Amino acid sequence: MYAVNVRDHFMIAHSFRGEVFGPAQRMHGATYVVDLELRREALDADGIVVDIGLATQVLREELAALNFRNLDEVPEFKGRNTTTEFLARLIFERVAARIAAGGLGPHALSTPQAPGLQQMRVTLNESHVAWASYEGVLPVAVPG
Amino acid sequence: MYAVNVRDHFMIAHSFRGEVFGPAQRMHGATYVVDLELRREALDADGIVVDIGLATQVLREELAALNFRNLDEVPEFKGRNTTTEFLARLIFERVAARIAAGGLGPHALSTPQAPGLQQMRVTLNESHVAWASYEGVLPVAVPG
Amino acid sequence: MYAVNVRDHFMIAHSFRGEVFGPAQRMHGATYVVDLELRREALDADGIVVDIGLATQVLREELAALNFRNLDEVPEFKGRNTTTEFLARLIFERVAARIAAGGLGPHALSTPQAPGLQQMRVTLNESHVAWASYEGVLPVAVPG
Amino acid sequence: MYAVNVRDHFMIAHSFRGEVFGPAQRMHGATYVVDLELRREALDADGIVVDIGLATQVLREELAALNFRNLDEVPEFKGRNTTTEFLARLIFERVAARIAAGGLGPHALSTPQAPGLQQMRVTLNESHVAWASYEGVLPVAVPG
Amino acid sequence: MYAVNVRDHFMIAHSFRGEVFGPAQRMHGATYVVDLELRREALDADGIVVDIGLATQVLREELAALNFRNLDEVPEFKGRNTTTEFLARLIFERVAARIAAGGLGPHALSTPQAPGLQQMRVTLNESHVAWASYEGVLPVAVPG
Amino acid sequence: MYAVNVRDHFMIAHSFRGEVFGPAQRMHGATYVVDLELRREALDADGIVVDIGLATQVLREELAALNFRNLDEVPEFKGRNTTTEFLARLIFERVAARIAAGGLGPHALSTPQAPGLQQMRVTLNESHVAWASYEGVLPVAVPG
Repeated sequence: MYAVNVRDHFMIAHSFRGEVFGPAQRMHGATYVVDLELRREALDADGIVVDIGLATQVLREELAALNFRNLDEVPEFKGRNTTTEFLARLIFERVAARIAAGGLGPHALSTPQAPGLQQMRVTLNESHVAWASYEGVLPVAVPG
Repeated sequence: MYAVNVRDHFMIAHSFRGEVFGPAQRMHGATYVVDLELRREALDADGIVVDIGLATQVLREELAALNFRNLDEVPEFKGRNTTTEFLARLIFERVAARIAAGGLGPHALSTPQAPGLQQMRVTLNESHVAWASYEGVLPVAVPG
Repeated sequence: MYAVNVRDHFMIAHSFRGEVFGPAQRMHGATYVVDLELRREALDADGIVVDIGLATQVLREELAALNFRNLDEVPEFKGRNTTTEFLARLIFERVAARIAAGGLGPHALSTPQAPGLQQMRVTLNESHVAWASYEGVLPVAVPG
Repeated sequence: MYAVNVRDHFMIAHSFRGEVFGPAQRMHGATYVVDLELRREALDADGIVVDIGLATQVLREELAALNFRNLDEVPEFKGRNTTTEFLARLIFERVAARIAAGGLGPHALSTPQAPGLQQMRVTLNESHVAWASYEGVLPVAVPG
Repeated sequence: MYAVNVRDHFMIAHSFRGEVFGPAQRMHGATYVVDLELRREALDADGIVVDIGLATQVLREELAALNFRNLDEVPEFKGRNTTTEFLARLIFERVAARIAAGGLGPHALSTPQAPGLQQMRVTLNESHVAWASYEGVLPVAVPG
Repeated sequence: MYAVNVRDHFMIAHSFRGEVFGPAQRMHGATYVVDLELRREALDADGIVVDIGLATQVLREELAALNFRNLDEVPEFKGRNTTTEFLARLIFERVAARIAAGGLGPHALSTPQAPGLQQMRVTLNESHVAWASYEGVLPVAVPG
């Protein structure tokens, strides 16, 4: 299995509900340094896992949608704890949808002739001592 | 699959028996920067993989039991080479026992309704050029 | 010149005023991984720069006072941009006051017989691509 | 599963063919910091995954064969894009052949009595924001 | 003294002349992860060392001029060994010229009322075990 | 000012005397990842700060003399606490003596025509949260 990883970051404010979060129930924030890892069994027609330029751009765009936000005020997250785990999965799903829509190029998609990207892992490094990740298989079903 | 990782460290002295170890047969020592990674398919009732505060505390306590020790003098390790691999598994088993005993909270345990923590990996980084790890499934059977 | 460095972190929310800050004018947040570096020409009576246990504890306490806070709501920072630079100096001054008050032990202080800690640098790492620091000489005058 | 990782690096020049590579179609170069991870279910007779001294030496020798080269001029790579993914697999195959030939010692090989090394991952870190890897099972068949 | 650091990278091919360079006399290449550190005694009118967005952009532009190049073919470097040290100084001078030309904004420049940026350090990290840097005072004289 | 840094590591056992050391009074050990930084105002005749191959070799040799040792049993350290600070200075002095003896080549030495290496810093990283260093000017006087 081949893998390629690109890294970027975003910075947000949020607060959590639930005793388990202790002082993190207060409004605070985090820098998340994000690793996006894409995997496939065989290289594509260009001899690569993915167009790394496109992967970098798609990751940047998805993080830009979250960057410099107070997540408590984002309607979509109403009533949810935007934990590191939750955000790892959210970014996984958003990037997966971009892939399914062709955002990483045609070779990223499976065809009858050749499999495309098969696995993805999104890791959010939140400090020098803690990180969380979500990984799953591709493609994800495109709602429609 | 979700994962959460916390990091801490400990510092020990030891020596090895066996020609394969070369100069490491002499009394020497190491700093081990330890990564404890916990994985599960679904988040718990609080929307997290694990109470990261408890995970940090349990890791610290288990490392404190080894920290600032000459492992050659620990009766439990008599006649064993306390290699990085051996220590990775030892810490895996000790933390797994803590989890089974409820040390990471009730949501870390599997119930008929919901799976708890399912996999764990313990990595010991011993320098900028070498590390070793042990990973396995949870829960481990509690001796009794 | 000798130096010793200890590392810890804190996580806050804040927003900035001023066009130069662009989207960072919105409420957002950051993880700051903090390096506290202490320097002196000669080692103390124990043969060390500083009691590293005390240094770690004082840094943790000073960061705890900021950790999991919305800095926009802290009265002391009213009307100030709590930039990384600003926070680096703030922590410098708070730790310097602790040192002057004996918080790092008697050997950290200069006497007619021997100089104590002479320089300090506080670095706030805010992502994998950016950090800021403030450094200055010790001791600082204790307001009185 | 146990794992051990050793790290080294090499520096090469090359160019790529194909529009997808953009400016990387020009002659350029890279430092690759290489992680070689070896895995097995049970430790060997010495209580280790592998003789880390031999693993370090074999990795160094294989990287030396590539180090300080213009890969465009290496006959073996004629007409191939020596992408990070390609090089990760190349090093995987070369080290796997060394293992099969006994280069990591007898305990690295499977016998009717005990399995040897079972999995290997080669990661090439090419910058602070990108890496690629290839992983597969061992032993690989020795051409003969 | 305050400092701010931003990081980016570039990838080049080159070769060296001189026995001291050993196998690096052959055409090879490197990834350079570049740290640009800017220092001043007092913060500017916005309460910062420098507009970090502008600093990031200027660094990216200067590295883009070198990125994906064979430095042996750049007329400006004819007859020069483009060592890591040489490149650190080259980037120092190019960024210093951009600052002097107003590229980091008006507050980066000294005026009769207030000093601007006073020191700069450029570090090129070429592997996990080696880096080189050049530092000097600002402003540099603008030729003309 | 130019600087070049090379990195290596060593692993030792030791114990400390003095209440300030707490549990580190027990026999324990450490991995020290060592950074050797050499500085000079002008590059040498080859256009470099130092022959990086020689610097790497000298550092490796000096660390080998300490590696895999119980420092409590080294006669030279009898009655001394081999703290991280102490070891940083020890390595500084040993490398400085090697430089003075020509071990880093003729261009590392000052002549009436040109200054050689002017400053050196030795940093011992002992964990992901602590390091110590010693820096001073070159050349040091060769005892004779």
